[in-house]
Amino acid sequence: MYNDLILKNVSNRIHLEPDEEAYFLTLLHPFTIRRKQLHLHRGEVCRHSTFVLSGCLRGYTIDSNGLEHILNFAPPDWWIADMYSLVTQQPGYLNIDALEDTQVLLLSKADQEKLYIRIPQFERYFRILTEKSLVSYHRRTLHNLSLSAQERYLAFCQSYPSLINTIAQKYIASYIGVTPEFLSKMRRDMLNQTR
Amino acid sequence: MYNDLILKNVSNRIHLEPDEEAYFLTLLHPFTIRRKQLHLHRGEVCRHSTFVLSGCLRGYTIDSNGLEHILNFAPPDWWIADMYSLVTQQPGYLNIDALEDTQVLLLSKADQEKLYIRIPQFERYFRILTEKSLVSYHRRTLHNLSLSAQERYLAFCQSYPSLINTIAQKYIASYIGVTPEFLSKMRRDMLNQTR
Repeated sequence: MYNDLILKNVSNRIHLEPDEEAYFLTLLHPFTIRRKQLHLHRGEVCRHSTFVLSGCLRGYTIDSNGLEHILNFAPPDWWIADMYSLVTQQPGYLNIDALEDTQVLLLSKADQEKLYIRIPQFERYFRILTEKSLVSYHRRTLHNLSLSAQERYLAFCQSYPSLINTIAQKYIASYIGVTPEFLSKMRRDMLNQTR
Repeated sequence: MYNDLILKNVSNRIHLEPDEEAYFLTLLHPFTIRRKQLHLHRGEVCRHSTFVLSGCLRGYTIDSNGLEHILNFAPPDWWIADMYSLVTQQPGYLNIDALEDTQVLLLSKADQEKLYIRIPQFERYFRILTEKSLVSYHRRTLHNLSLSAQERYLAFCQSYPSLINTIAQKYIASYIGVTPEFLSKMRRDMLNQTR
């Protein structure tokens, strides 16, 4: 069943022959990350692309005042990595941890490079995924520059509908760049407006 | 000489045979955009990837209060597009205009798709470019959430060293999300600190 999720994700973008699917699956390693456990530590080199099967991961930094800032979430069917570190193989700037017990598939950087050579269509697959991700960061950058906190909250709801009621509010607050108290008040105000 | 710039950009990432280079060049169409002229209008479908040879383009939106917010600049040797619109072929949300007279090469969406089929290595080329761009937006998103205006200014200087003294300060202010007056005061303060 776990294989189904990743194979469906791939087949939405490229067509693989059965022997290519089989080879691809040999490169993926199942792994469990416990709730609150760090999967990648800031300053480490990121050596894997991680595909989430169940649970939820998040990528974040901690600033010089000790405040957390969330770059992204990875619910099921999403890939996550510290892209800077994965691409350059230099120490990264992201922490990645689990918001709940999370099952993932790991694809090592070395195996990903092998995959590109053996099945060049995976260049296309990851090119398309990366473009999609880039589009969402273009949007988020403009939102951070131009939208109010309430509009940024609505944009979060659009990007991650499955997370609105499943993760702690403090994580959503950190993602949109406000305090949990401010988010809580804003949600109450929004609810009153719609009544 | 113009061909040299794009071919060097490509050969830094993938190796092409002479006949592949020749085919690629037939797909690129030289074009001039005059200073202040719009190259892409918000609401249009983006039909080209644009490679800058000389001059400078910028991508930006205008919010409901009429304020401009700059997503990116494209100095020489950079590609620019409204990625959302280019990928989905839906009306886009970006304006792209020229800060000075700008020479570009246009690669149409249709020709780019042909290119992927005829020379699949271009999947790799654009996958690598898109990853690089994604890394810079990861960084910018975290900067917008966690850095002070002064730190965001320094990050701009690192991303676009060639633009610090060549474009109007109001564009830099709009990129980092402050008013031109605030940027001007901040630059004076920074200068005084280093004296």
